[in-house]
Amino acid sequence: MRKTIIVEKEDVELKNPILIEGLPGLGMVGKITVKYLIKQLKAKKFAELYSPHFAYYVLVNDKGSIKLLNNEFYYWKNDAGGCDLILLTGDSQAQTIEGQYEVADSIIELASKKNVSMLITVGGYRRDVVDTPQVLASATSPEALKKALEAGSLINPPGNPVVGAAGLLLGLAKFKGIEGVCLLGETPGYIPDPKAAKSILVILMRMLNLKLDLTDIDKEIAKIVEMEEKMRKIEEQRKAAEREIRRIEEEKISYIG
Amino acid sequence: MRKTIIVEKEDVELKNPILIEGLPGLGMVGKITVKYLIKQLKAKKFAELYSPHFAYYVLVNDKGSIKLLNNEFYYWKNDAGGCDLILLTGDSQAQTIEGQYEVADSIIELASKKNVSMLITVGGYRRDVVDTPQVLASATSPEALKKALEAGSLINPPGNPVVGAAGLLLGLAKFKGIEGVCLLGETPGYIPDPKAAKSILVILMRMLNLKLDLTDIDKEIAKIVEMEEKMRKIEEQRKAAEREIRRIEEEKISYIG
Amino acid sequence: MRKTIIVEKEDVELKNPILIEGLPGLGMVGKITVKYLIKQLKAKKFAELYSPHFAYYVLVNDKGSIKLLNNEFYYWKNDAGGCDLILLTGDSQAQTIEGQYEVADSIIELASKKNVSMLITVGGYRRDVVDTPQVLASATSPEALKKALEAGSLINPPGNPVVGAAGLLLGLAKFKGIEGVCLLGETPGYIPDPKAAKSILVILMRMLNLKLDLTDIDKEIAKIVEMEEKMRKIEEQRKAAEREIRRIEEEKISYIG
Amino acid sequence: MRKTIIVEKEDVELKNPILIEGLPGLGMVGKITVKYLIKQLKAKKFAELYSPHFAYYVLVNDKGSIKLLNNEFYYWKNDAGGCDLILLTGDSQAQTIEGQYEVADSIIELASKKNVSMLITVGGYRRDVVDTPQVLASATSPEALKKALEAGSLINPPGNPVVGAAGLLLGLAKFKGIEGVCLLGETPGYIPDPKAAKSILVILMRMLNLKLDLTDIDKEIAKIVEMEEKMRKIEEQRKAAEREIRRIEEEKISYIG
Repeated sequence: MRKTIIVEKEDVELKNPILIEGLPGLGMVGKITVKYLIKQLKAKKFAELYSPHFAYYVLVNDKGSIKLLNNEFYYWKNDAGGCDLILLTGDSQAQTIEGQYEVADSIIELASKKNVSMLITVGGYRRDVVDTPQVLASATSPEALKKALEAGSLINPPGNPVVGAAGLLLGLAKFKGIEGVCLLGETPGYIPDPKAAKSILVILMRMLNLKLDLTDIDKEIAKIVEMEEKMRKIEEQRKAAEREIRRIEEEKISYIG
Repeated sequence: MRKTIIVEKEDVELKNPILIEGLPGLGMVGKITVKYLIKQLKAKKFAELYSPHFAYYVLVNDKGSIKLLNNEFYYWKNDAGGCDLILLTGDSQAQTIEGQYEVADSIIELASKKNVSMLITVGGYRRDVVDTPQVLASATSPEALKKALEAGSLINPPGNPVVGAAGLLLGLAKFKGIEGVCLLGETPGYIPDPKAAKSILVILMRMLNLKLDLTDIDKEIAKIVEMEEKMRKIEEQRKAAEREIRRIEEEKISYIG
Repeated sequence: MRKTIIVEKEDVELKNPILIEGLPGLGMVGKITVKYLIKQLKAKKFAELYSPHFAYYVLVNDKGSIKLLNNEFYYWKNDAGGCDLILLTGDSQAQTIEGQYEVADSIIELASKKNVSMLITVGGYRRDVVDTPQVLASATSPEALKKALEAGSLINPPGNPVVGAAGLLLGLAKFKGIEGVCLLGETPGYIPDPKAAKSILVILMRMLNLKLDLTDIDKEIAKIVEMEEKMRKIEEQRKAAEREIRRIEEEKISYIG
Repeated sequence: MRKTIIVEKEDVELKNPILIEGLPGLGMVGKITVKYLIKQLKAKKFAELYSPHFAYYVLVNDKGSIKLLNNEFYYWKNDAGGCDLILLTGDSQAQTIEGQYEVADSIIELASKKNVSMLITVGGYRRDVVDTPQVLASATSPEALKKALEAGSLINPPGNPVVGAAGLLLGLAKFKGIEGVCLLGETPGYIPDPKAAKSILVILMRMLNLKLDLTDIDKEIAKIVEMEEKMRKIEEQRKAAEREIRRIEEEKISYIG
């Protein structure tokens, strides 16, 4: 493989599809969001993207099966009459500057071919979060932004660029006349963050009039909270132990002194 | 996008145009200079350059609007009868060696197509500056250099290469038979430096017989001077505080001793 | 040379050939394994691969002869009636991401042209080894994996990607419908490790019903064991000397005290 | 410019030309050697090579004149009846792996077009040198090597690769059936080293039956020797000063004590 390629497994007809992209990135927020949509909507895979700009290794699963890194496109037919969805997630983003542009370009070409009416990119925004993470929106036009704001997101603070696929896809979309919105969930970003993903899912539900069961992501959040709680306790014990050691050493010194 | 492209919005006819380039670089001198020219001359945008060699992120402005990194070409019709101007500035330079050559190549192609009679590149030259920054000139021919020197610039010291677009554009211009001059304003280079930009504007006014109102750039310079003065005071207070702490500690030691 | 090229010296007809790849990598396990097969089977070279993605230097041998880095393909005709073999080893792997994909692509094209029925890639797996190194297998299909497990290898632990040619070749093989297995010998990896290579040779002998004389690799292992033993002794002497110095210094201190 | 190009200024007919390459590298040995040949033989420039893989800056000379980095080809007609010469030197080598291969490829294409009968590459070999630097030779064939050895060079020690153009050109030459020799002069390598260059010139004079006046390079060597002597003295004074400071401080301590 010398160029990015998209292998279409099925030639699906879609109605005004909206493409939602969530690839690995800060706090894995984008990937968690889109994988959750795929699972809840029982979306079907119809295309795979491969690129010589992904990392040069293969993944091995727990059955010893080898997988070349890729991005995958799923579709969901909206029987309620609204727009159909194309959901894009995957193992990796491109590793170089030119690779990022080439991969984004391939995705936009497919989107254009499928007459995508709107592109929504999803990711994380690094920030210490107190309670419920906010969702920060930017867009290719005031109209597109308005939809995201009406659904409860806040305007993205200026100055911070949107890095990687979530940004580039929207930047390149305008060459094909496709409107787009970027939704970033606030996240400290150092571990996978389903809480930020949930905040985005709530916005998407309102924007797209989607019905989603959020029970499973609540379970994921509970697990992470539990894990963080455990880590906090271990850290406390470690600190207490350190204090005790210091106390004993000080006693020794005063004893010797 | 897989190659650098220039999207022309308007097919303008220009009279012996001179292209002035000022892209982000040392002290932002080039960009400040050309942006000032665009504003003062009320130049109009007619083309945009995009490249997969720019950084892979998009900018977000204070209205949440997304912008793909680009370079922009403006034109100004010289009603006084002299040469028309093409003004080139933008968000970014290419991030790789090959990218630098490819982008410069695309710019030279447009310049050639528009029958550019002279190319002037503008940037910063790293140097501690006491008072008014000097402008250092180099050129593709002795005749071109002479014009810059007669306008008050000094000859560029040998040995220091001219890095990036300001240099490469001139190096590549000769393949199309276009003459060129590089004007570098002396600047410490660690913050945006309107003072160095002003020095270049003065040279350009003389070289091109341009009339420019410099009031606004003087205001910019005043702001920077004020900011630097504040920073100097804060630094002095910090040092005074440190001296006081040291004094008290020394007293303690001599007391204990 | 601007693209990876394969120069075929001889147009050999091969019977259901199996391609075994072993290029430089961790502990040189892959390269030692395949070079041993070439030598023992008296395989003949029939093609050379060159690439602008290899390092930009040439090798000099002990006769002052210059050699451009390459990968080499050998063949072995299986007179016992089983599959013929193509053996691939070389001086280098590609140095960049895109290069790794381009080189792997060229190899897969040749494999496809030669109707390769199975691809086996060989390398090292970083791990502290107590006694006999295990061989860890992954594959492109459960059937392919089964063959490797029946021959005595263990299933590759999930999570660790297979990096470089050993992984990418298998990932790309599926585009040509070629099945493949990856065999990694456990190795600490910091020096050439014939012991890990021998473990893989034993698995290959069973999988492919090959008869190999292992006397020479046992000699290689004995040499390495001897060398390691010497290094261990030198290290012990160094430590003993350090202890002695410390003892003397402590005596001095207590004497002075 | 998007690919390496060679601009031929003159279409010269040459008799069995031998190409001698010396580009910037260790101790500048190659470049000094070939520039000396060009000057002494009064060779004429006939072609220039430009590449997007050179560094992205332009040089400025002491007259403020701008120069794009390039490599230059000179020719010398051998009136004594032997082979004509093509001499290749320049400002830079390519900055990336693929660039090194692409540039070398372009040079070999020109060499092939000009029916070059032999390629000699020249450079430095890092080594502490006591007296006269040796010249270390490697070659594409035993016959080619023999000529270099008979002229007084030694066989290149195995194991050390020949990095950059000096190596790659020879590695790629064989694809066009061109024989080649690499001559490396021993040099500590940290400053321009005319002494190593002279050693190579002596070998070249014998190999090619060339008559060269070496007076000028002897002057260069004398200058370097003088400069090194000065640096040695400054270093000695610095050390003496340090010893004196230490002595005084020790006196202070013993006085206080």
